[in-house]
Amino acid sequence: MEQVNFINGQTRLYAIIGDPIEQVRSPEMITWELQQRGINGVLCPVHIAEPDFDRVLPELLKIRNMDGLIFTIPYKARALAHAQHIGPQAQVIGAFNAMVRQADGAWAGEMFDGLGCLEAFRRRGFRLNGQRLMLMGLGGAGMAIGAAMAAEHPRLMRVFDLDAARCERMAQTIARISPNTEVQIGKPDTQGMDVLLNATPIGMLGDTRMAIDASSLPAQLIVFDAIVKPELTPLLRLAEASGCRTVKGREMMGGQISRIVDFFIARGPELLS
Amino acid sequence: MEQVNFINGQTRLYAIIGDPIEQVRSPEMITWELQQRGINGVLCPVHIAEPDFDRVLPELLKIRNMDGLIFTIPYKARALAHAQHIGPQAQVIGAFNAMVRQADGAWAGEMFDGLGCLEAFRRRGFRLNGQRLMLMGLGGAGMAIGAAMAAEHPRLMRVFDLDAARCERMAQTIARISPNTEVQIGKPDTQGMDVLLNATPIGMLGDTRMAIDASSLPAQLIVFDAIVKPELTPLLRLAEASGCRTVKGREMMGGQISRIVDFFIARGPELLS
Repeated sequence: MEQVNFINGQTRLYAIIGDPIEQVRSPEMITWELQQRGINGVLCPVHIAEPDFDRVLPELLKIRNMDGLIFTIPYKARALAHAQHIGPQAQVIGAFNAMVRQADGAWAGEMFDGLGCLEAFRRRGFRLNGQRLMLMGLGGAGMAIGAAMAAEHPRLMRVFDLDAARCERMAQTIARISPNTEVQIGKPDTQGMDVLLNATPIGMLGDTRMAIDASSLPAQLIVFDAIVKPELTPLLRLAEASGCRTVKGREMMGGQISRIVDFFIARGPELLS
Repeated sequence: MEQVNFINGQTRLYAIIGDPIEQVRSPEMITWELQQRGINGVLCPVHIAEPDFDRVLPELLKIRNMDGLIFTIPYKARALAHAQHIGPQAQVIGAFNAMVRQADGAWAGEMFDGLGCLEAFRRRGFRLNGQRLMLMGLGGAGMAIGAAMAAEHPRLMRVFDLDAARCERMAQTIARISPNTEVQIGKPDTQGMDVLLNATPIGMLGDTRMAIDASSLPAQLIVFDAIVKPELTPLLRLAEASGCRTVKGREMMGGQISRIVDFFIARGPELLS
Protein backbone atom coordinates (compact mmCIF):
# COMPACT_ATOMS: atom_id res chain seq x y z
CA MET A 1 0.00 0.00 0.00
CA GLU A 2 1.43 3.38 -0.92
CA GLN A 3 2.22 5.70 1.96
CA VAL A 4 4.21 8.71 3.07
CA ASN A 5 7.27 8.21 5.26
CA PHE A 6 7.06 11.26 7.51
CA ILE A 7 4.10 10.41 9.75
CA ASN A 8 2.70 7.25 11.34
CA GLY A 9 0.95 5.99 14.47
CA GLN A 10 4.03 6.58 16.66
CA THR A 11 4.49 10.19 15.57
CA ARG A 12 4.68 12.71 18.44
CA LEU A 13 2.65 15.87 17.89
CA TYR A 14 3.72 19.48 18.20
CA ALA A 15 1.60 22.46 17.20
CA ILE A 16 1.79 26.18 16.58
CA ILE A 17 -1.34 27.98 17.73
CA GLY A 18 -2.40 31.35 16.36
CA ASP A 19 -5.14 33.39 14.73
CA PRO A 20 -4.59 33.73 11.80
CA ILE A 21 -2.28 30.79 11.13
CA GLU A 22 -1.67 30.63 7.36
CA GLN A 23 1.43 32.86 7.49
CA VAL A 24 3.45 30.87 10.05
CA ARG A 25 6.72 29.23 9.04
CA SER A 26 7.26 26.96 12.06
CA PRO A 27 5.51 23.89 10.62
CA GLU A 28 8.02 23.39 7.81
CA MET A 29 11.06 24.62 9.77
CA ILE A 30 10.51 23.03 13.19
CA THR A 31 9.37 19.75 11.63
CA TRP A 32 12.60 19.73 9.60
CA GLU A 33 14.65 20.34 12.74
CA LEU A 34 12.79 17.62 14.70
CA GLN A 35 13.19 15.03 11.98
CA GLN A 36 16.81 16.07 11.42
CA ARG A 37 17.44 15.22 15.07
CA GLY A 38 15.86 11.81 14.71
CA ILE A 39 12.53 12.65 16.37
CA ASN A 40 9.43 11.06 14.84
CA GLY A 41 7.44 14.28 15.20
CA VAL A 42 5.56 16.86 13.16
CA LEU A 43 4.59 20.41 14.07
CA CYS A 44 1.08 21.23 12.84
CA PRO A 45 -0.50 24.62 12.25
CA VAL A 46 -3.51 24.92 14.58
CA HIS A 47 -5.94 27.76 13.98
CA ILE A 48 -7.92 28.62 17.11
CA ALA A 49 -10.18 31.69 17.08
CA GLU A 50 -9.86 34.14 19.99
CA PRO A 51 -13.17 33.35 21.72
CA ASP A 52 -12.30 29.64 21.75
CA PHE A 53 -8.71 29.79 22.98
CA ASP A 54 -9.13 29.42 26.74
CA ARG A 55 -11.49 26.45 26.41
CA VAL A 56 -9.75 24.61 23.56
CA LEU A 57 -6.18 24.85 24.86
CA PRO A 58 -6.64 22.89 28.13
CA GLU A 59 -8.29 20.06 26.17
CA LEU A 60 -5.50 20.01 23.57
CA LEU A 61 -3.04 19.54 26.42
CA LYS A 62 -4.80 16.26 27.27
CA ILE A 63 -3.81 14.67 23.96
CA ARG A 64 -1.37 12.00 25.12
CA ASN A 65 1.01 12.24 22.18
CA MET A 66 1.06 16.07 22.14
CA ASP A 67 4.49 17.05 23.47
CA GLY A 68 5.01 20.71 22.71
CA LEU A 69 3.33 23.91 21.54
CA ILE A 70 4.39 27.19 20.00
CA PHE A 71 2.24 30.29 20.40
CA THR A 72 2.06 33.16 17.99
CA ILE A 73 -0.10 36.27 17.66
CA PRO A 74 -2.37 36.89 19.56
CA TYR A 75 -1.67 34.22 22.21
CA LYS A 76 1.84 34.79 23.58
CA ALA A 77 0.53 36.46 26.76
CA ARG A 78 -2.71 34.47 27.14
CA ALA A 79 -0.84 31.16 27.04
CA LEU A 80 0.88 32.03 30.33
CA ALA A 81 -2.19 31.02 32.35
CA HIS A 82 -2.01 27.45 31.03
CA ALA A 83 1.51 26.48 32.16
CA GLN A 84 2.48 25.18 35.59
CA HIS A 85 6.09 26.37 35.26
CA ILE A 86 7.13 29.70 33.75
CA GLY A 87 10.73 30.20 32.60
CA PRO A 88 12.81 33.23 33.63
CA GLN A 89 12.55 34.96 30.24
CA ALA A 90 8.77 34.47 30.21
CA GLN A 91 8.51 35.80 33.76
CA VAL A 92 10.15 39.11 32.96
CA ILE A 93 8.35 39.50 29.61
CA GLY A 94 4.94 38.35 30.86
CA ALA A 95 4.49 36.12 27.80
CA PHE A 96 5.98 33.04 26.19
CA ASN A 97 6.03 31.40 22.80
CA ALA A 98 6.82 27.76 23.59
CA MET A 99 5.44 25.22 26.00
CA VAL A 100 6.57 21.64 26.63
CA ARG A 101 5.10 18.71 28.53
CA GLN A 102 7.64 17.76 31.15
CA ALA A 103 8.44 14.18 32.13
CA ASP A 104 6.23 14.64 35.23
CA GLY A 105 3.23 15.69 33.08
CA ALA A 106 3.29 19.38 34.01
CA TRP A 107 3.63 22.02 31.28
CA ALA A 108 6.50 24.50 31.24
CA GLY A 109 6.59 27.66 29.12
CA GLU A 110 9.42 29.93 28.04
CA MET A 111 9.91 32.90 25.72
CA PHE A 112 12.44 32.19 22.96
CA ASP A 113 12.20 35.40 20.90
CA GLY A 114 15.21 36.86 22.69
CA LEU A 115 17.06 33.59 23.28
CA GLY A 116 17.03 33.02 19.51
CA CYS A 117 18.82 36.34 19.01
CA LEU A 118 21.34 35.38 21.70
CA GLU A 119 21.90 32.03 19.99
CA ALA A 120 22.58 33.79 16.66
CA PHE A 121 25.29 35.92 18.37
CA ARG A 122 26.73 32.83 20.09
CA ARG A 123 26.99 30.95 16.79
CA ARG A 124 28.93 33.85 15.29
CA GLY A 125 31.20 33.94 18.32
CA PHE A 126 30.17 37.53 19.18
CA ARG A 127 30.18 37.97 22.93
CA LEU A 128 27.80 40.36 24.68
CA ASN A 129 29.15 40.21 28.23
CA GLY A 130 30.84 43.54 29.06
CA GLN A 131 29.76 45.11 25.75
CA ARG A 132 27.83 48.33 25.10
CA LEU A 133 24.50 47.80 23.30
CA MET A 134 22.05 50.12 21.57
CA LEU A 135 18.56 48.58 21.29
CA MET A 136 15.93 50.22 19.07
CA GLY A 137 12.27 49.20 19.24
CA LEU A 138 10.57 47.79 22.32
CA GLY A 139 7.59 45.87 20.99
CA GLY A 140 7.21 42.20 21.93
CA ALA A 141 10.36 41.13 20.09
CA GLY A 142 12.44 44.09 21.30
CA MET A 143 11.48 43.50 24.94
CA ALA A 144 12.38 39.81 24.63
CA ILE A 145 15.71 40.62 22.96
CA GLY A 146 16.47 43.20 25.68
CA ALA A 147 15.73 40.72 28.46
CA ALA A 148 17.83 37.98 26.86
CA MET A 149 20.73 40.34 26.23
CA ALA A 150 20.57 41.68 29.80
CA ALA A 151 21.12 38.16 31.10
CA GLU A 152 24.55 38.25 29.37
CA HIS A 153 25.50 41.22 31.59
CA PRO A 154 26.58 43.85 29.08
CA ARG A 155 28.38 46.93 30.45
CA LEU A 156 25.80 49.36 28.99
CA MET A 157 22.36 49.08 27.41
CA ARG A 158 20.79 52.13 25.80
CA VAL A 159 17.17 51.60 24.77
CA PHE A 160 14.87 53.58 22.51
CA ASP A 161 11.21 53.45 21.63
CA LEU A 162 8.66 56.13 20.69
CA ASP A 163 6.59 54.91 23.66
CA ALA A 164 8.18 56.27 26.88
CA ALA A 165 6.33 53.75 29.08
CA ARG A 166 7.91 50.87 27.19
CA CYS A 167 11.35 52.44 27.62
CA GLU A 168 10.75 52.70 31.35
CA ARG A 169 9.55 49.11 31.58
CA MET A 170 12.55 47.81 29.59
CA ALA A 171 14.96 49.81 31.78
CA GLN A 172 13.44 48.32 34.94
CA THR A 173 13.56 44.82 33.48
CA ILE A 174 17.23 45.18 32.58
CA ALA A 175 18.03 46.55 36.03
CA ARG A 176 16.29 43.60 37.65
CA ILE A 177 18.10 41.00 35.49
CA SER A 178 21.53 42.65 35.53
CA PRO A 179 21.90 45.26 38.28
CA ASN A 180 25.46 46.13 37.25
CA THR A 181 24.52 47.00 33.66
CA GLU A 182 24.30 50.75 33.09
CA VAL A 183 20.91 51.57 31.53
CA GLN A 184 20.18 54.61 29.42
CA ILE A 185 16.95 55.70 27.78
CA GLY A 186 17.41 57.89 24.74
CA LYS A 187 17.65 58.46 21.02
CA PRO A 188 19.47 55.90 18.88
CA ASP A 189 23.19 56.53 18.99
CA THR A 190 26.18 54.50 17.83
CA GLN A 191 28.80 56.69 19.53
CA GLY A 192 30.79 54.48 21.90
CA MET A 193 28.63 51.43 21.15
CA ASP A 194 29.78 47.90 20.34
CA VAL A 195 26.45 46.46 19.16
CA LEU A 196 23.44 48.04 17.42
CA LEU A 197 20.20 46.08 17.60
CA ASN A 198 17.14 46.93 15.50
CA ALA A 199 13.84 45.51 16.71
CA THR A 200 11.66 48.17 15.06
CA PRO A 201 9.72 47.28 11.90
CA ILE A 202 11.54 50.06 10.00
CA GLY A 203 13.02 48.57 6.80
CA MET A 204 10.57 45.66 6.61
CA LEU A 205 9.35 44.47 3.20
CA GLY A 206 9.00 47.50 0.92
CA ASP A 207 10.00 50.05 3.59
CA THR A 208 13.14 51.78 2.30
CA ARG A 209 13.74 53.84 5.45
CA MET A 210 16.77 53.38 7.65
CA ALA A 211 16.16 52.37 11.29
CA ILE A 212 18.79 54.90 12.41
CA ASP A 213 19.55 58.37 11.07
CA ALA A 214 23.11 57.94 9.78
CA SER A 215 24.98 57.88 6.48
CA SER A 216 27.72 55.60 7.77
CA LEU A 217 28.39 53.47 10.85
CA PRO A 218 31.60 52.89 12.86
CA ALA A 219 33.34 49.88 11.32
CA GLN A 220 33.86 48.12 14.66
CA LEU A 221 30.08 48.05 15.33
CA ILE A 222 28.22 44.72 15.16
CA VAL A 223 24.80 45.39 13.60
CA PHE A 224 21.79 43.14 14.14
CA ASP A 225 18.38 43.47 12.48
CA ALA A 226 15.44 41.36 13.68
CA ILE A 227 13.65 41.77 10.33
CA VAL A 228 13.50 38.54 8.31
CA LYS A 229 12.18 39.97 5.02
CA PRO A 230 14.07 41.39 3.25
CA GLU A 231 17.16 39.49 4.28
CA LEU A 232 19.22 42.65 3.76
CA THR A 233 17.39 45.65 5.20
CA PRO A 234 18.53 49.21 4.44
CA LEU A 235 20.25 49.18 7.87
CA LEU A 236 22.16 45.98 7.11
CA ARG A 237 23.16 47.33 3.68
CA LEU A 238 24.56 50.45 5.34
CA ALA A 239 26.34 48.26 7.91
CA GLU A 240 27.95 46.16 5.19
CA ALA A 241 28.94 49.28 3.24
CA SER A 242 30.50 50.65 6.46
CA GLY A 243 32.56 47.49 6.99
CA CYS A 244 30.56 46.33 10.03
CA ARG A 245 29.93 42.71 10.94
CA THR A 246 26.21 41.86 10.82
CA VAL A 247 23.74 39.38 12.31
CA LYS A 248 20.57 38.86 10.27
CA GLY A 249 16.93 38.23 11.25
CA ARG A 250 17.15 34.86 9.57
CA GLU A 251 19.99 33.89 11.90
CA MET A 252 17.84 34.83 14.89
CA MET A 253 15.02 32.69 13.45
CA GLY A 254 17.43 29.78 13.01
CA GLY A 255 18.72 30.25 16.55
CA GLN A 256 15.19 30.31 17.92
CA ILE A 257 14.19 27.13 16.08
CA SER A 258 17.22 25.38 17.46
CA ARG A 259 16.58 26.52 21.04
CA ILE A 260 12.88 25.62 20.91
CA VAL A 261 13.66 22.13 19.66
CA ASP A 262 16.26 21.78 22.46
CA PHE A 263 13.46 22.74 24.85
CA PHE A 264 11.02 20.25 23.25
CA ILE A 265 13.55 17.43 23.46
CA ALA A 266 14.76 18.12 27.00
CA ARG A 267 11.14 17.85 28.24
CA GLY A 268 12.32 19.14 31.58
CA PRO A 269 12.90 22.41 33.33
CA GLU A 270 16.69 22.32 32.78
CA LEU A 271 16.53 25.00 30.12
CA LEU A 272 14.44 27.23 32.33
CA SER A 273 17.04 27.83 34.98
CA MET B 1 16.42 28.05 5.84
CA GLU B 2 16.06 24.30 5.58
CA GLN B 3 12.54 22.95 5.74
CA VAL B 4 10.28 20.04 4.93
CA ASN B 5 7.90 20.31 1.97
CA PHE B 6 4.90 18.39 3.30
CA ILE B 7 3.50 20.78 5.91
CA ASN B 8 3.16 24.55 6.23
CA GLY B 9 0.87 27.24 7.62
CA GLN B 10 -1.84 26.53 5.02
CA THR B 11 -1.98 22.79 5.74
CA ARG B 12 -5.45 21.43 6.54
CA LEU B 13 -5.59 19.04 9.47
CA TYR B 14 -7.13 15.59 9.69
CA ALA B 15 -6.75 13.22 12.63
CA ILE B 16 -7.31 9.63 13.67
CA ILE B 17 -8.46 9.36 17.26
CA GLY B 18 -8.01 6.21 19.33
CA ASP B 19 -6.66 4.65 22.50
CA PRO B 20 -4.08 3.22 21.97
CA ILE B 21 -2.93 4.94 18.78
CA GLU B 22 0.57 3.64 17.96
CA GLN B 23 -0.69 0.75 15.81
CA VAL B 24 -2.82 2.78 13.36
CA ARG B 25 -1.88 2.92 9.68
CA SER B 26 -4.13 5.79 8.55
CA PRO B 27 -1.58 8.58 9.12
CA GLU B 28 0.83 7.34 6.46
CA MET B 29 -1.83 5.99 4.10
CA ILE B 30 -4.51 8.70 4.25
CA THR B 31 -1.88 11.46 4.15
CA TRP B 32 -0.44 9.83 1.01
CA GLU B 33 -3.90 9.72 -0.58
CA LEU B 34 -4.66 13.36 0.37
CA GLN B 35 -1.38 14.66 -0.99
CA GLN B 36 -1.72 12.47 -4.10
CA ARG B 37 -5.01 14.24 -4.81
CA GLY B 38 -3.40 17.66 -4.48
CA ILE B 39 -4.70 18.45 -0.98
CA ASN B 40 -2.31 20.30 1.34
CA GLY B 41 -3.31 18.13 4.32
CA VAL B 42 -1.88 15.70 6.85
CA LEU B 43 -3.65 13.12 8.99
CA CYS B 44 -2.20 13.03 12.51
CA PRO B 45 -2.42 10.27 15.10
CA VAL B 46 -4.24 11.69 18.14
CA HIS B 47 -4.15 9.68 21.34
CA ILE B 48 -7.05 10.55 23.65
CA ALA B 49 -7.59 8.48 26.79
CA GLU B 50 -11.10 7.15 27.45
CA PRO B 51 -12.01 9.43 30.38
CA ASP B 52 -11.06 12.51 28.32
CA PHE B 53 -12.81 11.69 25.05
CA ASP B 54 -16.16 13.42 25.49
CA ARG B 55 -14.61 16.67 26.70
CA VAL B 56 -11.65 16.83 24.32
CA LEU B 57 -13.49 15.98 21.10
CA PRO B 58 -15.92 18.96 21.04
CA GLU B 59 -12.97 21.32 21.57
CA LEU B 60 -10.93 19.68 18.80
CA LEU B 61 -13.85 20.30 16.46
CA LYS B 62 -13.40 24.06 17.07
CA ILE B 63 -9.95 24.06 15.45
CA ARG B 64 -10.63 26.11 12.32
CA ASN B 65 -8.29 24.20 10.01
CA MET B 66 -9.41 20.75 11.22
CA ASP B 67 -11.48 19.29 8.39
CA GLY B 68 -11.94 15.60 9.10
CA LEU B 69 -11.53 12.85 11.69
CA ILE B 70 -11.25 9.09 11.72
CA PHE B 71 -12.21 7.09 14.79
CA THR B 72 -10.77 3.79 15.80
CA ILE B 73 -11.07 1.55 18.86
CA PRO B 74 -12.69 2.31 21.29
CA TYR B 75 -14.49 5.37 19.87
CA LYS B 76 -16.50 4.26 16.82
CA ALA B 77 -19.79 4.22 18.76
CA ARG B 78 -19.05 7.10 21.16
CA ALA B 79 -18.24 9.46 18.29
CA LEU B 80 -21.86 9.27 17.12
CA ALA B 81 -23.00 11.77 19.77
CA HIS B 82 -20.70 14.46 18.35
CA ALA B 83 -22.01 14.64 14.76
CA GLN B 84 -25.01 16.65 13.56
CA HIS B 85 -25.60 14.39 10.56
CA ILE B 86 -25.36 10.60 10.60
CA GLY B 87 -24.97 8.69 7.34
CA PRO B 88 -27.16 5.69 6.45
CA GLN B 89 -24.45 3.08 7.11
CA ALA B 90 -23.70 4.65 10.50
CA GLN B 91 -27.41 4.73 11.35
CA VAL B 92 -27.88 1.00 10.86
CA ILE B 93 -24.57 0.10 12.53
CA GLY B 94 -24.89 2.55 15.43
CA ALA B 95 -21.28 3.67 14.97
CA PHE B 96 -19.05 5.45 12.44
CA ASN B 97 -15.39 5.76 11.69
CA ALA B 98 -15.14 9.04 9.80
CA MET B 99 -16.46 12.54 10.34
CA VAL B 100 -16.14 15.61 8.12
CA ARG B 101 -16.83 19.31 8.62
CA GLN B 102 -19.41 20.27 6.01
CA ALA B 103 -19.38 23.54 4.12
CA ASP B 104 -22.09 24.84 6.51
CA GLY B 105 -19.92 24.08 9.58
CA ALA B 106 -21.93 21.06 10.80
CA TRP B 107 -20.19 17.69 11.23
CA ALA B 108 -21.34 14.60 9.35
CA GLY B 109 -20.30 11.05 10.22
CA GLU B 110 -20.39 7.81 8.26
CA MET B 111 -19.18 4.23 8.69
CA PHE B 112 -16.77 3.16 5.93
CA ASP B 113 -15.77 -0.32 7.12
CA GLY B 114 -18.35 -1.93 4.86
CA LEU B 115 -18.18 0.65 2.07
CA GLY B 116 -14.47 -0.11 1.73
CA CYS B 117 -15.29 -3.77 1.10
CA LEU B 118 -17.91 -2.77 -1.46
CA GLU B 119 -15.36 -0.49 -3.16
CA ALA B 120 -12.89 -3.40 -3.39
CA PHE B 121 -15.54 -5.53 -5.16
CA ARG B 122 -16.46 -2.62 -7.44
CA ARG B 123 -12.82 -2.13 -8.48
CA ARG B 124 -12.59 -5.79 -9.43
CA GLY B 125 -15.81 -5.53 -11.40
CA PHE B 126 -17.53 -8.14 -9.19
CA ARG B 127 -21.19 -7.28 -8.90
CA LEU B 128 -23.24 -8.15 -5.78
CA ASN B 129 -26.71 -7.22 -6.96
CA GLY B 130 -28.77 -10.39 -7.41
CA GLN B 131 -25.97 -12.62 -6.02
CA ARG B 132 -26.02 -15.13 -3.15
CA LEU B 133 -23.67 -14.26 -0.28
CA MET B 134 -22.38 -16.22 2.71
CA LEU B 135 -21.09 -13.87 5.49
CA MET B 136 -19.12 -15.34 8.42
CA GLY B 137 -18.40 -13.27 11.52
CA LEU B 138 -20.64 -10.47 12.80
CA GLY B 139 -18.35 -8.33 14.93
CA GLY B 140 -18.05 -4.60 14.14
CA ALA B 141 -16.45 -5.20 10.72
CA GLY B 142 -18.82 -8.04 9.79
CA MET B 143 -21.93 -6.02 10.67
CA ALA B 144 -20.64 -3.09 8.59
CA ILE B 145 -19.84 -5.37 5.64
CA GLY B 146 -23.28 -6.98 5.90
CA ALA B 147 -25.04 -3.61 5.93
CA ALA B 148 -23.01 -2.31 2.96
CA MET B 149 -23.59 -5.51 0.96
CA ALA B 150 -27.33 -5.47 1.72
CA ALA B 151 -27.57 -2.03 0.10
CA GLU B 152 -26.49 -3.71 -3.19
CA HIS B 153 -29.61 -5.90 -2.99
CA PRO B 154 -28.22 -9.41 -3.28
CA ARG B 155 -30.71 -12.23 -3.90
CA LEU B 156 -29.70 -14.13 -0.73
CA MET B 157 -27.60 -13.40 2.35
CA ARG B 158 -26.78 -16.22 4.76
CA VAL B 159 -25.11 -15.02 7.95
CA PHE B 160 -23.23 -16.87 10.65
CA ASP B 161 -21.80 -15.95 14.04
CA LEU B 162 -21.34 -17.92 17.28
CA ASP B 163 -23.45 -15.21 18.97
CA ALA B 164 -27.10 -15.82 18.07
CA ALA B 165 -28.16 -12.30 19.08
CA ARG B 166 -25.73 -10.81 16.56
CA CYS B 167 -27.15 -13.09 13.86
CA GLU B 168 -30.63 -11.90 14.70
CA ARG B 169 -29.58 -8.25 14.63
CA MET B 170 -27.79 -8.63 11.29
CA ALA B 171 -30.79 -10.40 9.78
CA GLN B 172 -33.09 -7.57 10.87
CA THR B 173 -30.68 -4.95 9.53
CA ILE B 174 -30.49 -6.66 6.15
CA ALA B 175 -34.27 -6.97 6.01
CA ARG B 176 -34.62 -3.25 6.74
CA ILE B 177 -32.10 -2.21 4.09
CA SER B 178 -33.15 -4.67 1.41
CA PRO B 179 -36.59 -6.18 2.04
CA ASN B 180 -36.43 -8.36 -1.09
CA THR B 181 -33.17 -10.07 -0.08
CA GLU B 182 -33.76 -13.56 1.33
CA VAL B 183 -32.02 -13.80 4.72
CA GLN B 184 -30.84 -17.04 6.32
CA ILE B 185 -29.15 -17.60 9.65
CA GLY B 186 -27.02 -20.73 9.77
CA LYS B 187 -23.73 -22.56 9.57
CA PRO B 188 -21.20 -21.54 6.91
CA ASP B 189 -22.07 -23.16 3.63
CA THR B 190 -20.82 -22.61 0.10
CA GLN B 191 -23.48 -24.74 -1.57
CA GLY B 192 -25.34 -22.56 -4.09
CA MET B 193 -23.39 -19.45 -3.08
CA ASP B 194 -21.71 -16.91 -5.37
CA VAL B 195 -19.67 -15.04 -2.76
CA LEU B 196 -18.06 -16.16 0.51
CA LEU B 197 -17.13 -13.37 2.95
CA ASN B 198 -14.95 -13.94 6.00
CA ALA B 199 -15.16 -11.30 8.71
CA THR B 200 -14.09 -13.58 11.57
CA PRO B 201 -10.54 -13.27 12.96
CA ILE B 202 -9.87 -16.93 12.06
CA GLY B 203 -6.65 -17.10 10.04
CA MET B 204 -5.22 -13.84 11.36
CA LEU B 205 -1.46 -13.57 11.96
CA GLY B 206 -0.17 -16.95 13.15
CA ASP B 207 -3.62 -18.61 13.18
CA THR B 208 -3.41 -21.53 10.72
CA ARG B 209 -7.08 -22.48 11.03
CA MET B 210 -9.48 -22.25 8.13
CA ALA B 211 -12.51 -19.96 8.54
CA ILE B 212 -14.71 -22.62 6.93
CA ASP B 213 -14.64 -26.36 7.32
CA ALA B 214 -13.83 -27.47 3.77
CA SER B 215 -11.00 -29.09 1.82
CA SER B 216 -11.92 -27.43 -1.47
CA LEU B 217 -14.28 -24.68 -2.66
CA PRO B 218 -16.48 -24.43 -5.76
CA ALA B 219 -14.38 -22.79 -8.49
CA GLN B 220 -17.07 -20.23 -9.41
CA LEU B 221 -17.09 -18.82 -5.82
CA ILE B 222 -15.64 -15.34 -5.18
CA VAL B 223 -13.86 -15.46 -1.81
CA PHE B 224 -13.22 -12.38 0.32
CA ASP B 225 -11.25 -12.23 3.56
CA ALA B 226 -11.28 -9.06 5.70
CA ILE B 227 -7.97 -10.03 7.36
CA VAL B 228 -5.09 -7.76 6.35
CA LYS B 229 -2.23 -9.75 7.91
CA PRO B 230 -1.28 -12.18 6.52
CA GLU B 231 -2.12 -11.05 3.02
CA LEU B 232 -2.92 -14.66 2.10
CA THR B 233 -4.91 -16.32 4.89
CA PRO B 234 -5.47 -20.10 4.94
CA LEU B 235 -8.94 -19.44 3.47
CA LEU B 236 -7.54 -17.38 0.58
CA ARG B 237 -4.88 -20.05 -0.08
CA LEU B 238 -7.60 -22.70 -0.31
CA ALA B 239 -9.64 -20.41 -2.58
CA GLU B 240 -6.68 -19.92 -4.92
CA ALA B 241 -5.95 -23.66 -4.91
CA SER B 242 -9.61 -24.26 -5.78
CA GLY B 243 -9.47 -21.86 -8.76
CA CYS B 244 -11.67 -19.20 -7.09
CA ARG B 245 -11.32 -15.48 -7.65
CA THR B 246 -10.39 -13.63 -4.42
CA VAL B 247 -10.66 -10.20 -2.85
CA LYS B 248 -8.10 -9.47 -0.11
CA GLY B 249 -8.26 -7.51 3.15
CA ARG B 250 -5.70 -5.12 1.74
CA GLU B 251 -8.04 -4.30 -1.14
CA MET B 252 -10.81 -3.51 1.36
CA MET B 253 -8.37 -1.25 3.21
CA GLY B 254 -7.44 0.52 -0.03
CA GLY B 255 -11.10 0.88 -0.93
CA GLN B 256 -11.87 2.34 2.48
CA ILE B 257 -9.04 4.88 2.28
CA SER B 258 -10.27 5.99 -1.10
CA ARG B 259 -13.88 6.35 0.06
CA ILE B 260 -12.91 8.23 3.24
CA VAL B 261 -10.81 10.71 1.28
CA ASP B 262 -13.73 11.17 -1.15
CA PHE B 263 -15.85 11.96 1.93
CA PHE B 264 -13.22 14.39 3.31
CA ILE B 265 -12.95 16.22 0.01
CA ALA B 266 -16.67 16.42 -0.74
CA ARG B 267 -17.20 18.15 2.64
CA GLY B 268 -20.91 17.71 2.14
CA PRO B 269 -23.63 15.20 2.76
CA GLU B 270 -23.71 14.00 -0.88
CA LEU B 271 -21.97 10.77 0.02
CA LEU B 272 -24.37 10.12 2.83
CA SER B 273 -27.47 9.63 0.72
